[in-house]
Amino acid sequence: MGEPLGGLLSAPPAIVAAGVEAFSAAARGQGAAVTDVAWRPPAFGDPADLTQLALDPRRAAANRTAVERVLAAGSLLTDVRPAREVLGLPDRMLLHAGPPLTWEAASGPMRGALLGACIFEGWASGPADAERILAAGEIALEPCHHYRAVGPMAGVTSPSMWLWCLADPVHGGQAFSTLNEGLGKVLRYGAFDAEVQARLGWMRDVLGPVLQRAVARRAGDPVDVRAILAQMLQMGDEGHNRNRAGSLLTLRELSPSIVEVDAPAADIAAVLRFIGGNEHFFLNLGMPTAKLAMDAARDVPGATMVTVLARNGTDFGVQTAGTGDRWFTAPADTPVGLFLGGYGPDDANPDIGDSAIMETYGVGGFAMAAAPAIVRFVGGTVPDALATTERMYQLTLAENPAMQIPVLGFRGAPTGIDVVQVARTGWLPQINTGMAGRVAGTGQVGAGLVQPPQRCFEQALAALAAESRAAR
Amino acid sequence: MGEPLGGLLSAPPAIVAAGVEAFSAAARGQGAAVTDVAWRPPAFGDPADLTQLALDPRRAAANRTAVERVLAAGSLLTDVRPAREVLGLPDRMLLHAGPPLTWEAASGPMRGALLGACIFEGWASGPADAERILAAGEIALEPCHHYRAVGPMAGVTSPSMWLWCLADPVHGGQAFSTLNEGLGKVLRYGAFDAEVQARLGWMRDVLGPVLQRAVARRAGDPVDVRAILAQMLQMGDEGHNRNRAGSLLTLRELSPSIVEVDAPAADIAAVLRFIGGNEHFFLNLGMPTAKLAMDAARDVPGATMVTVLARNGTDFGVQTAGTGDRWFTAPADTPVGLFLGGYGPDDANPDIGDSAIMETYGVGGFAMAAAPAIVRFVGGTVPDALATTERMYQLTLAENPAMQIPVLGFRGAPTGIDVVQVARTGWLPQINTGMAGRVAGTGQVGAGLVQPPQRCFEQALAALAAESRAAR
Repeated sequence: MGEPLGGLLSAPPAIVAAGVEAFSAAARGQGAAVTDVAWRPPAFGDPADLTQLALDPRRAAANRTAVERVLAAGSLLTDVRPAREVLGLPDRMLLHAGPPLTWEAASGPMRGALLGACIFEGWASGPADAERILAAGEIALEPCHHYRAVGPMAGVTSPSMWLWCLADPVHGGQAFSTLNEGLGKVLRYGAFDAEVQARLGWMRDVLGPVLQRAVARRAGDPVDVRAILAQMLQMGDEGHNRNRAGSLLTLRELSPSIVEVDAPAADIAAVLRFIGGNEHFFLNLGMPTAKLAMDAARDVPGATMVTVLARNGTDFGVQTAGTGDRWFTAPADTPVGLFLGGYGPDDANPDIGDSAIMETYGVGGFAMAAAPAIVRFVGGTVPDALATTERMYQLTLAENPAMQIPVLGFRGAPTGIDVVQVARTGWLPQINTGMAGRVAGTGQVGAGLVQPPQRCFEQALAALAAESRAAR
Repeated sequence: MGEPLGGLLSAPPAIVAAGVEAFSAAARGQGAAVTDVAWRPPAFGDPADLTQLALDPRRAAANRTAVERVLAAGSLLTDVRPAREVLGLPDRMLLHAGPPLTWEAASGPMRGALLGACIFEGWASGPADAERILAAGEIALEPCHHYRAVGPMAGVTSPSMWLWCLADPVHGGQAFSTLNEGLGKVLRYGAFDAEVQARLGWMRDVLGPVLQRAVARRAGDPVDVRAILAQMLQMGDEGHNRNRAGSLLTLRELSPSIVEVDAPAADIAAVLRFIGGNEHFFLNLGMPTAKLAMDAARDVPGATMVTVLARNGTDFGVQTAGTGDRWFTAPADTPVGLFLGGYGPDDANPDIGDSAIMETYGVGGFAMAAAPAIVRFVGGTVPDALATTERMYQLTLAENPAMQIPVLGFRGAPTGIDVVQVARTGWLPQINTGMAGRVAGTGQVGAGLVQPPQRCFEQALAALAAESRAAR
């Protein structure tokens, strides 16, 4: 402050214009020195709630704690076991994707997958019988997320299905997911016919046991799944709808152990062909990797970071680090994208699946810049893909140094969605996703882009503000 | 010409300024209408030669014929056989990379590889003995390219080494390359010690026979190597120094057949581990794929397209479609890039290897935009990688629709280097490459970027012009 007071008083007015361009232009036109500041009113949310959170002295440190746990989490492949054993999943219970759901509220593909699982487990003799027991409430339905599991699309997990078992050596967590069936007419997209049942049977009788023994052979040197995910981003995958490199890397990691399993050569070859023929095989390893990281950040009071984005085909559900296991739900939107064969927009079911855990973790739609070729699968243009990742940096708390995006000069993926930043910008997280047929039994109809309903974030914001007030 | 002559005469002078900016600015400053044309004097070459070629009525059609053959060529993996059988390579003959070479002129890594091959074949009891027979002229040396083969780095190929055998189903050509040994201390980088010999022995006794039988099992459905190369460009590889995805795709294609080969499980597992552990395994499949395409364009009178870029560690050699098997050579430059361990620029040998066939085909350095992560291996920045591909479009005759670069909106790779365009622009083809240690026995010291000597193109231009005059 070397300027004498008199000089300051006689100087022309110094104006700081916060976001309102018409005003700053008018002042500048009158010869005033105007400093523009990038500010704009919040896009949604009660201003009192936003002020409450902005002034919460816990918030910065809590979000740092939460996102640092996410960045530090590891993911090792430790076992492959049936859901009955590893989750203690009882008879007559099925897990499903997204927030809690009843049979009555379930969409077509979710109903298809639930029917198929009842038949697969031998609880029903056919679709009509399965529908009867489901409608009668004889089958308990629980979200995968409540069992530290994540399931793509319908995410239906039954006791006889084998699960990847992953462990976070840093925080001690565990997470689980089924084995990926491939694309097209598969249970997770709501198909349940004889072809689907035969594949599930082979996965139960051959694939699961072979993978279990192959993974056991690597007990002293478990596959580092997070490292595979990091490599994929250097190889044109984003880890949600493009898992080509990741699936090949998984095949490379497991194939030497697979061939050493004492099983018929034809079975071994069939396992290698199945993995090699499924470009999404890695997805069910990537999802529990993200789940491990996000679960490590659960229950950090004052943190406004999202820990779950998940959809059950009817509702979209959000959880945050500062609000524990509470779900903030709203009706799910329907993706917009590209369709297989003769399918079109009218055939698509609303958004479904736990796979948005990938975006929650900062990859998938958030890392589309790493995977420009994905626009041929989900729609849009290459510049859109680059711009999407750039935009997601505005919503997130950190850049993940382990998940680098080469074309952005190896910048880390935008990680840790902040509910407050979402409300301030009005930009919703970008998810890219598969599209299930609206009618049970159809299977996949396409892939595309979708966002969570703003209403989920409005509720989360209000709940976080209420918690903040209560914590005073 | 609707303008009356009088109007034209009374109008201010209309000036077309061809490339000389100072002149157009001066004229514009005097009120003249100046139309700038992007023209500049040729960067090198006798103007009379360039005029001769520009006016050669054959040239446009000949180049179109040449590059269309390149674009049309296919590449199927048909067999794996020892060089002795498939090339008829006699005892006491070795193939090497690049243009013709004598023992006396050979660089350190080339000598190291030649020594190692003599020991491997049992022609010499050790390095001193091998040096003696090589110096005495007892071992015939021939370029790989003269045998429809291509070898990375030293490219030394001896009768007992197994070769990939590839066929072009469109033009009927065949091309060959050894099996890739991996990185580090390997024969092709000039190392020849016991570790190298042991690996070559295992490749001869286990890897080659297993691959032969695995490939034979796919006789009715041969692996489409060109399709793998195309997929790699969607997965962050450029096919010369980054072959990660390609190697995994190869593993995926071959592993089911490999496990069905009747061989000990430990051998099968070792083969899968060897392939899975070598991120450059695909290179020796990519190179003969490019060779098939470039050989399809040989001997097109009037065509000024390059068919070979190859280096023997001493000289760089160029061939063109219009000049048959004639080599245009000049001393090779030394790459600039990144070094392994404690190595530095003084340790690097001049440019070596037939692998620049990848750039000749329009991938490798020409497709660096597809592989931004490669800058971590060869040096430079991501914007450099993108700009390099953009620049190579100025030197080439076509965009290869089969080799698409996602980040450039799926533009085809710049393909078919035109000697005339190189002379006009003065921009030399960009090659990215491995770097061998200058001292025999060292192995790899790094990877980097290099260009052919301009002198090769000066000679090619003069020869093409002379042929054009003679064809009148």
